[in-house]
Amino acid sequence: MIDHLTQPLVYFFGQGRADGTATMKDILGGKGAGLAEMTNIGIPVPPGFTIASTVCPTYLALNQFPPRLKPQAEAALERIEAATGKQFGGASNPLLVSVRSGAALSMPGMMETILNLGLNDTTVRGLEQLSGNSRFAWDSYRRFVQMYGCVVFDLPKRLFEERLEAAKHRTGVSRDIDLPIEEFRTLVADFKAAIAAETGKPFPEEPLDQLWGAIAAVFESWNTRRAIDYRKLHDIPDSMGTAVNVMAMVFGNMGDDSGTGVAFTRNPSTGEHHLYGEFLLNAQGEDVVSGARTPEPIANLKTEMPQIYGELDKVARTLERHFRDVQDLEFTIERGHLYMLQTRRGQRTGFAAVRVAVEMVDEGTITEEEAVARVPPNDLNQLLHQTIDPTGELDLIATGLPASPGAASGTVVFNADRAEELGRKGTAVILVRRETSPEDFHGMVAARAIVTARGGMTSHAAVVARGMGKPCVAGAQDLDVDEAAGQFRVGTRTIAEGEWISIDGANGRIYAGQAKLISPELSGHYDRLMTWADRMRHLRVRVNADTPADAHRGRDFGAEGIGLCRTEHMFFEGDRLGAMREMILAEDEAGRKKALAKLLPMQRGDFEGIFRAMEGFPVTIRLLDPPLHEFLPKEPEEIATLAHDMGKTVKDVQRIIDSLSEINPMLGLRGCRLGIMYPEITTMQARAIFEAACTVAERKGRVQPEVMIPLVAHVIEFRKQALIVRQVAEEVFRERQITVPYLLGTMIELPRAALTADEIAREAQFFSFGTNDLTQTTWGLSRDDAGVFLPAYLEKNIIEFDPFQELDITGVGRLISMAVDLGRKTRQDLKVGICGEHGGEPRAIAFCEAQKMNYVSCSPYRVPIARLAAAQAALAERGTMDRTRGTL
Amino acid sequence: MIDHLTQPLVYFFGQGRADGTATMKDILGGKGAGLAEMTNIGIPVPPGFTIASTVCPTYLALNQFPPRLKPQAEAALERIEAATGKQFGGASNPLLVSVRSGAALSMPGMMETILNLGLNDTTVRGLEQLSGNSRFAWDSYRRFVQMYGCVVFDLPKRLFEERLEAAKHRTGVSRDIDLPIEEFRTLVADFKAAIAAETGKPFPEEPLDQLWGAIAAVFESWNTRRAIDYRKLHDIPDSMGTAVNVMAMVFGNMGDDSGTGVAFTRNPSTGEHHLYGEFLLNAQGEDVVSGARTPEPIANLKTEMPQIYGELDKVARTLERHFRDVQDLEFTIERGHLYMLQTRRGQRTGFAAVRVAVEMVDEGTITEEEAVARVPPNDLNQLLHQTIDPTGELDLIATGLPASPGAASGTVVFNADRAEELGRKGTAVILVRRETSPEDFHGMVAARAIVTARGGMTSHAAVVARGMGKPCVAGAQDLDVDEAAGQFRVGTRTIAEGEWISIDGANGRIYAGQAKLISPELSGHYDRLMTWADRMRHLRVRVNADTPADAHRGRDFGAEGIGLCRTEHMFFEGDRLGAMREMILAEDEAGRKKALAKLLPMQRGDFEGIFRAMEGFPVTIRLLDPPLHEFLPKEPEEIATLAHDMGKTVKDVQRIIDSLSEINPMLGLRGCRLGIMYPEITTMQARAIFEAACTVAERKGRVQPEVMIPLVAHVIEFRKQALIVRQVAEEVFRERQITVPYLLGTMIELPRAALTADEIAREAQFFSFGTNDLTQTTWGLSRDDAGVFLPAYLEKNIIEFDPFQELDITGVGRLISMAVDLGRKTRQDLKVGICGEHGGEPRAIAFCEAQKMNYVSCSPYRVPIARLAAAQAALAERGTMDRTRGTL
Repeated sequence: MIDHLTQPLVYFFGQGRADGTATMKDILGGKGAGLAEMTNIGIPVPPGFTIASTVCPTYLALNQFPPRLKPQAEAALERIEAATGKQFGGASNPLLVSVRSGAALSMPGMMETILNLGLNDTTVRGLEQLSGNSRFAWDSYRRFVQMYGCVVFDLPKRLFEERLEAAKHRTGVSRDIDLPIEEFRTLVADFKAAIAAETGKPFPEEPLDQLWGAIAAVFESWNTRRAIDYRKLHDIPDSMGTAVNVMAMVFGNMGDDSGTGVAFTRNPSTGEHHLYGEFLLNAQGEDVVSGARTPEPIANLKTEMPQIYGELDKVARTLERHFRDVQDLEFTIERGHLYMLQTRRGQRTGFAAVRVAVEMVDEGTITEEEAVARVPPNDLNQLLHQTIDPTGELDLIATGLPASPGAASGTVVFNADRAEELGRKGTAVILVRRETSPEDFHGMVAARAIVTARGGMTSHAAVVARGMGKPCVAGAQDLDVDEAAGQFRVGTRTIAEGEWISIDGANGRIYAGQAKLISPELSGHYDRLMTWADRMRHLRVRVNADTPADAHRGRDFGAEGIGLCRTEHMFFEGDRLGAMREMILAEDEAGRKKALAKLLPMQRGDFEGIFRAMEGFPVTIRLLDPPLHEFLPKEPEEIATLAHDMGKTVKDVQRIIDSLSEINPMLGLRGCRLGIMYPEITTMQARAIFEAACTVAERKGRVQPEVMIPLVAHVIEFRKQALIVRQVAEEVFRERQITVPYLLGTMIELPRAALTADEIAREAQFFSFGTNDLTQTTWGLSRDDAGVFLPAYLEKNIIEFDPFQELDITGVGRLISMAVDLGRKTRQDLKVGICGEHGGEPRAIAFCEAQKMNYVSCSPYRVPIARLAAAQAALAERGTMDRTRGTL
Repeated sequence: MIDHLTQPLVYFFGQGRADGTATMKDILGGKGAGLAEMTNIGIPVPPGFTIASTVCPTYLALNQFPPRLKPQAEAALERIEAATGKQFGGASNPLLVSVRSGAALSMPGMMETILNLGLNDTTVRGLEQLSGNSRFAWDSYRRFVQMYGCVVFDLPKRLFEERLEAAKHRTGVSRDIDLPIEEFRTLVADFKAAIAAETGKPFPEEPLDQLWGAIAAVFESWNTRRAIDYRKLHDIPDSMGTAVNVMAMVFGNMGDDSGTGVAFTRNPSTGEHHLYGEFLLNAQGEDVVSGARTPEPIANLKTEMPQIYGELDKVARTLERHFRDVQDLEFTIERGHLYMLQTRRGQRTGFAAVRVAVEMVDEGTITEEEAVARVPPNDLNQLLHQTIDPTGELDLIATGLPASPGAASGTVVFNADRAEELGRKGTAVILVRRETSPEDFHGMVAARAIVTARGGMTSHAAVVARGMGKPCVAGAQDLDVDEAAGQFRVGTRTIAEGEWISIDGANGRIYAGQAKLISPELSGHYDRLMTWADRMRHLRVRVNADTPADAHRGRDFGAEGIGLCRTEHMFFEGDRLGAMREMILAEDEAGRKKALAKLLPMQRGDFEGIFRAMEGFPVTIRLLDPPLHEFLPKEPEEIATLAHDMGKTVKDVQRIIDSLSEINPMLGLRGCRLGIMYPEITTMQARAIFEAACTVAERKGRVQPEVMIPLVAHVIEFRKQALIVRQVAEEVFRERQITVPYLLGTMIELPRAALTADEIAREAQFFSFGTNDLTQTTWGLSRDDAGVFLPAYLEKNIIEFDPFQELDITGVGRLISMAVDLGRKTRQDLKVGICGEHGGEPRAIAFCEAQKMNYVSCSPYRVPIARLAAAQAALAERGTMDRTRGTL
């Protein structure tokens, strides 16, 4: 708690000593804390002071400054005067200051800045003399009045720009800086008159009035619409407030021995350890921002100002060592003197994050724990997938949802068969569909990437693509896909089959043409970081894999078992689909059994491959889950073909399809309900699992099947299905004369299962939370239909995130937490994990760690992310995440 | 706890004293406790003894009797001999006994009985002499051997019947009793030989062997398949066991001074206070059961045996006064002596239950609390609805689900328009549909009853019918309805439009022809009972009513407000549907607002009527809930008509319909999601509510609107919608210069709302649990689709009841309980109720009482049931339900 009565409201920094430190970010804001810390450790910083952020809410509530503020601020101003030898408002050697906002959390571009404050008709003459440059002095004055008018009096920019344009027109010049000096003088007078006319008050000549006006304006900028929206979006409390930094101006535009620039202490793209940035001689920051001149790379400073460069390099090393992280710096050179104006934590790419973290451990700067804690898990996506070269020319045509990361280029195709045909020839194709269904699977396999016009982050296309690690942009609503005509329209353009497009699944962008791609490379740095992470985490990380190929891929990425093997995906391929349809269309149990007998060897083969790929690790196999109609065709021609193949009439087939159609298939005949209605399906699947397991075990392979019964709502459902599985297991073990240890558990994906987890855990040996379906039922939200209104929900800030992308810890999490507690109450050694889309999401993983779950499971390409996130979660639980000191 | 070492295993009764009492049902079983109690209070009961039910599990586990049993039983047998002066196995005056099962809970017909035990080749001669009737003696012997063979040796009935038939054939007689006496002798020998051949052991001649064999057989009958199934169905623990009653035989077939009969102490149909029953002279119970002779009404006994009748009447009064309830009696008259063989609580109709309960209070036999506690709430259905006269001839053609109670006769129609057309002419019609949709509403209004071939207890037809109090049989799957041809087939029969059928919605039966109906009459007894109930209950009872007519009906039934007014039902009628469709088809907000402006006065009018009908009581109005596509037509012709009416192309209308179609509409764009996407709908509805409220309030009416926001998953949804409602309320109050107090709350119908009830209660003033939808999402079960597998679930005993009919207290209840606790944690005075189908279900009401809810709400015809159930729940919570002593 801050004692508001005795706590200083103003913190001076200058002459090598500051009232504040880097740890006081809450009070000083990020910028103020950085300035204070730099001052304390001997870095050259222009003197100044910071007004505590705690003043902000008081000011905004009362619309007046606390009485203690003015004397403290004016005392600090005197200290600036003493440090600089200049006087605020002084005629001969005037002190000018900048006034800048700076909250504890960065809100880039959200709040206001005023430069050159302290200029008036008197002090401008002092500046003229001091700088020996009248145009500079008057231009500074002109800019100040304009900035003040906009920021403090909230006047439109237009008001000043019109006058500036008129002056240029009048004098026939095109650049501001070429205006004759009298024009600047005229403009200052003009601007002041305009402000007076608009506000009804004269422009404040008195520098102290200017200062308090500016401070008030900075505080008020905390409550602009955009600042409020930004805070809401980023969960920043309104009560935090901003600090105000008042600092002596230094000028980079005082001649060729002056300049300004920005620098990173390491390369933020690659992580290489060298100074990285750019600068401009004889310029102010504004000139860099406006783009009027092109800055030079920082390396050139070495030749042009070797001493300054040396100083800067030393400052960079000092700061990085001090803050123990890459710093992003702003500096100004005034007449051969280097001044640091800002230091903060440097943003970086995933590549750089990994490299810097590992190298800093080698340099002895940070610990391995800190290295692991420091890399944002999702940044690993960049290391695992291709990316689009941002330096190439790009022709953006649409943006959809970033459904599966990675970039790809290819020619457009509109159906799965064509994708397969061309893919087989080695053509790079991108499959573009209105939406995909299981029947498109072979086309998705053949395509480099998938684009859909409909569907969300958990649509069929998105889920399958993520599973395969293929780039996918889903729900690109601007695309008007005409599959029959073999083209899509977007805006006024039409793109036909065979034309090139490129997509970036990490941000949902779709480009016309063939973009240049950058391939990822897993560096030694990555391997070392992941080794450390694996040592630190408690949670096991498994992969969701339905095929031996997926299983291998997952294992390559470090998965320690399979957390979800969806048996139904196996049924969509080739001749399996035929046998599956035969089973569904069978009129009686005998017919179903006959068809199931055909499926048995195929399933057994799949399981054998999967068990082999995952030898030594557990493999969780979920029994058949989806509604049967998903396996049946929808189009009349396909129905006719199927009827012909099955020796049935079209009418009969249509009747069966109709009888299987459901109003709410999500809540219908699926999951264990299928196994209860048709126990022969469960029998066949159990047999395939245990026969495969025995085969591998016979050859001395270590197999650990975990059979998972899906969509259980009531413990008796589980009991009935478990009985069948156990009976089959015993039969097979007897036949094969070998026993394989296995577990029998359930997917907790319905609220009722969570609510009665104590009962279910009496029978089930493990729980795997199916958070996709659990989210659907807990929210009463169909992910297939939510696309119509969820975007509006996000836009209107009704929800902060899509609960299908990020785990809803408040709601769904409460249910999960309850289920874990209830389950462990009746079975202490209950194995608990999470599978589904949230299993690779860092926030969800932290939640799983807090619940002391045993494992998380996710799609292959998210396995490394999950490993890192799990380590961070373990560190956070131990309280070692935040050991990094004073990160800005 | 029973001390198994010292507790007697055998309880004698006879000569006016019994070891047991009525309170020992757990040990003696219902029958044994009744016999003991009757003996104790001086009722003439043949002497006998009861073997404690605790022996049963021991015997079944060890397959032998406990050592203490035999001496105790044989001592008791001697006491019977002493009491009767007969000897067990005696040659001259033999004692015969019956051996009967009798568990603590009645399991009618589930277990075994053996009569005439003690007969052998010696004792049969004694019986001959004693009775002076050789045929009687030998027939008794023949029956005993046959019964013993079947029950104790588990031989097929056929074995004996074949021999009996052969004997009749041989002698040319058609009735058993007409066989010559020698044939009986031959048959006894034949039967014994057959038994010996089948079992490999001679038939036991020794009466004691017979007795122990019979006792063992009774115990073993506890574990027959049907007994086990029966117990499972009725939740009776297997460990309970049955007692065995061994009692001296008395014979009603010893001549015209003998007889047998059954009697109720009051009329079980009407409750009238007179002896009710029937008897046969010179007969045994078996003769009554076999239907060989037709019994006489008990009143005739008054003339035929006035003294016996007087005794019986006195016994009846004594027993009723003693047990404080209607008794169901069995008696035998042996040579002018009356013996009571059984007394137990008399089953009765709803009419009788009410009348008896109230009259017993008047007689001073029971308290008002007991009267209220004693009437099963669902029995009131009989008092509220028509019933089919069971005495008429009935032609049952199919049975469906008992979807809405009451009976009706009418001619069949197959579409709503025809129903309306004929109904308007006063023709009694029954609407038969494959299933109904909101567009059939006008036809349902016009029909006497509704029958559907598909859909469950909460299908559209069922819900609407219950709301209207119309009989409905839903899901009669045997009906093959051909709406186009205007007929339905059932089995081999075809019933066409215009033919009569009759239905009973209380049991789901459908009859061909016009059955005779009995109209209900609410008696003074009913009114008095309900007045007492109302005084005892805590829960308020409200009605679900969507129209002023429903509101009036609910109020007539005693509703204290409306708990659920579904505004969408108003939109399906007449010109509203047109305006609603115009709103849905509007392409922009302006178009929607135009259409909503047309709806506003209609809604306002409805609300005014409802507020008037419910003056002085709260009215909960739910804002628009269903998906919009429910309001749009499905058939091509209707779409064409709509397009024409709206001045749009068919293609445009079809496109809008398509865009509104959802994969899982239950989890789609509905509830408050509509209000969030189209805030103008909420605005219109709020305006209609408050304008109507102000109009009523201006005329001094007391209005208490409670605005309910449906399908809230996240507190922010509620907040946004609540803001609109509050703004409109303030606007209207300002315009009308009057303020109406109102509440703003939500329907808790999604698990997430329950899980975050603490957050939601910060903003919502009341919760109403929408248990239909909450059950759907908690179970992940669509009530529209569950019909395919729920019946199998019930049949396979996976679930004990349909969770849409009875509240799932284990699962859904846990969620509700959690929500109530969380909600009241943040808002102590949170008003909590339940609406939807479970609101009128007695078990659910008891649950609501335990949760200390404020009210329940249900359809109009269930209001009385809910009032009574609420009173019983309150009594149960106070522990006053079971004060009734020794109910058998």
